[in-house]
Amino acid sequence: MPALNLKSDFADADDLDTQMAAIGRRARAAARQMALASAQTKDIALRAIAERIRVGSAEILRANARDVAAAKAASQSAALIDRLTLDEKRIAAIADAVEKIGALADPVGRQLAAFERPNGLLIERIAVPLGVIGVIFESRPNVTADAGALCLKAGNAAILRAGSDSHRSAMAIARAMSEGLVEAGLPADAIQIVPTRDRAAVGAMLTGLGGAIDVIVPRGGRSLVERVQAEAKVPVFAHLDGICHVYVAAAADLGMARTVLLNSKMRRTGICGAAETLLVDRACADTHLAPLVTALLDAGCAVRGDEAVRAVDPRVTSATDEDWRTEYLDAIISARVVEGLDAAIQHIEANGSHHTDAIITEDQAEATRFLAEVDSAIVTHNASTQFADGGEFGFGAEIGIATGRMHARGPVGVEQLTTFKYRVHGNGQTRP
Amino acid sequence: MPALNLKSDFADADDLDTQMAAIGRRARAAARQMALASAQTKDIALRAIAERIRVGSAEILRANARDVAAAKAASQSAALIDRLTLDEKRIAAIADAVEKIGALADPVGRQLAAFERPNGLLIERIAVPLGVIGVIFESRPNVTADAGALCLKAGNAAILRAGSDSHRSAMAIARAMSEGLVEAGLPADAIQIVPTRDRAAVGAMLTGLGGAIDVIVPRGGRSLVERVQAEAKVPVFAHLDGICHVYVAAAADLGMARTVLLNSKMRRTGICGAAETLLVDRACADTHLAPLVTALLDAGCAVRGDEAVRAVDPRVTSATDEDWRTEYLDAIISARVVEGLDAAIQHIEANGSHHTDAIITEDQAEATRFLAEVDSAIVTHNASTQFADGGEFGFGAEIGIATGRMHARGPVGVEQLTTFKYRVHGNGQTRP
Repeated sequence: MPALNLKSDFADADDLDTQMAAIGRRARAAARQMALASAQTKDIALRAIAERIRVGSAEILRANARDVAAAKAASQSAALIDRLTLDEKRIAAIADAVEKIGALADPVGRQLAAFERPNGLLIERIAVPLGVIGVIFESRPNVTADAGALCLKAGNAAILRAGSDSHRSAMAIARAMSEGLVEAGLPADAIQIVPTRDRAAVGAMLTGLGGAIDVIVPRGGRSLVERVQAEAKVPVFAHLDGICHVYVAAAADLGMARTVLLNSKMRRTGICGAAETLLVDRACADTHLAPLVTALLDAGCAVRGDEAVRAVDPRVTSATDEDWRTEYLDAIISARVVEGLDAAIQHIEANGSHHTDAIITEDQAEATRFLAEVDSAIVTHNASTQFADGGEFGFGAEIGIATGRMHARGPVGVEQLTTFKYRVHGNGQTRP
Repeated sequence: MPALNLKSDFADADDLDTQMAAIGRRARAAARQMALASAQTKDIALRAIAERIRVGSAEILRANARDVAAAKAASQSAALIDRLTLDEKRIAAIADAVEKIGALADPVGRQLAAFERPNGLLIERIAVPLGVIGVIFESRPNVTADAGALCLKAGNAAILRAGSDSHRSAMAIARAMSEGLVEAGLPADAIQIVPTRDRAAVGAMLTGLGGAIDVIVPRGGRSLVERVQAEAKVPVFAHLDGICHVYVAAAADLGMARTVLLNSKMRRTGICGAAETLLVDRACADTHLAPLVTALLDAGCAVRGDEAVRAVDPRVTSATDEDWRTEYLDAIISARVVEGLDAAIQHIEANGSHHTDAIITEDQAEATRFLAEVDSAIVTHNASTQFADGGEFGFGAEIGIATGRMHARGPVGVEQLTTFKYRVHGNGQTRP
């Protein structure tokens, strides 16, 4: 398969733009083949990819060892090196995840709507792949397989740009994936890793490679997402911040409020769906505020509060205006008392990030208003904000969570990696 | 209502950026009120708007007369002056169209999906408004009302930028619309016309006004759409070209092929869904080609063909490579013979614009392949390409036709002017 060898040829190509344009053209051609592949063929390919990753683990680990050595030589942080490091267990998990994505229902070909017109035309809206998806990530090499498999399952081609730390590992995983694709009769180029560490390659991807990239998905820290959102000329599926709120209303059950709040904040503090701010209705502050704040403190969470919250416990420190707009991603929460539902919604709209926000209340009317008026991708009633996750939504897996308003919002699973076309069935109809 | 007077204040504002930012802020605030408006309130507002347009027709016609006089003084083309000119009948039609949009089903609040999770969580995907829609148009003042009403129906706010020719007319129509909104208790600022003819205002809108505009809809000629697509930093709903094909397969019924072809090309030649290229399968060229080409010629359509087509009739002129990629928007068609379905699909993918393409055949398997493999927003089987229209699709009205792949594709009606959010209903669930 010559396609498998082309990647190394790029190193000899004239310049970055030429290389990137060639990658774009090959991705577009591969996307067309992927779009027409049957559900069965795609599933065979994903199983073959999982197997190639398992069989090729020694090679992947060798590439990864070079990445890790380089990161250590460059005195990278222990956290980065942990994210970067693969072992047999992690590779097995990567292969299992690919196989799981293969087993999902095919999102392509779904009939999203159908209507018969008075003139007898039958019009169907049918899900089709988005096309070419650009994924830009940092130090986690598993993104190659996770994000790549989701793109393939939805009939797309993917162009992946690994962080320079994870470049060799990502190349090795992508090679295994291309082999699996070819084994199933699909194009190797449906997965391509940008074969250069030149940071200008990111800029080229953000321009869309002359129409060759349909959407960009950044997978990494805030600075990456910020750059992508600022510079991209093509649509982006991403969220910049997850400043998630838990609002405890007067009609909240205290026990439920405590449980849901602790889970929203402390189950995992580093994920985008973790709560960052607690709002408590003044009407229940006398009964609810102290138990909630004490529970947080006792669970090891620092609390930064307004005057009312500080009055509860001397361990509470002062919240500044900045705190209301801060995503801690840590065992820290900001907390304040608000004058009822309207004030809570106003606080969330003014300070939040339209990601995930929760209300705890036994008052259904109040919950309904909160769910309607808080303009976030996900709003929950009596449920943890940490359910903001494609797996928890039943999507099987997600490529990320989007807070933009276009096309995909909330968890981006395989269905969100499709678009649609209209099929019009007639028997000779003409327009009068 | 102070909001109604603010517009004239802008003329005194310091500079364009300040003005535009203020428009963006007011639109965002208005969008929030619109998003929470009930279906009934929006319908009352749209009826009030229709009534204000009718009652205010003298004022609108005065403003329009000034626009027309200025266009004549500037020696604009007769076609432009026709598009620009309003009369009592056209104003009545504008008001009727607004009322018709008001009568459509509310696209907001629709339950797009619902699923119960094993942990008892009920997750709903609910349609919500997109937010703020920027509409950039040229000389047709009716776009103010047509596009504006669609945006309002879907719970959005609109920022409209009229061409300098139609500026006064657009301002007068928008004033009537703001009055109708206020009458229904909705914000006047849900419809704003950019109050300057400074062309830099278009550039400002294309940047998204600092996050205040969610999507841009250009309504006008190719050069406008091209500029918007090239410069926009926000998503765009548009199509650049409508290079639509009719493929007559070997198994086509000749009578049907002739009828559908003539309608696709000649019903109206100036619309984006008009056919621009005829492809005929070599296998039926002996029987079908001459009658089809003759029918076109006899209907007054110029035909530019390949050698086989030229052999049919001396009136056929030579097609160049450029012809296959040309949207004539006129009584001209390019025509060629192709070697069967694969060649037809290949021609369309290489030269088309992913808008609307038709196959005429009695062979269902061939039709199925065509509908699957032609990557266009709309694909039709035994039906005219001129059905590419929101009204014909049953959407009631459309703001345009999109050939992009994100969010909206094909006719963009009120449903496509919404996005969605997830509502999660729990009873205390936490994530394990």
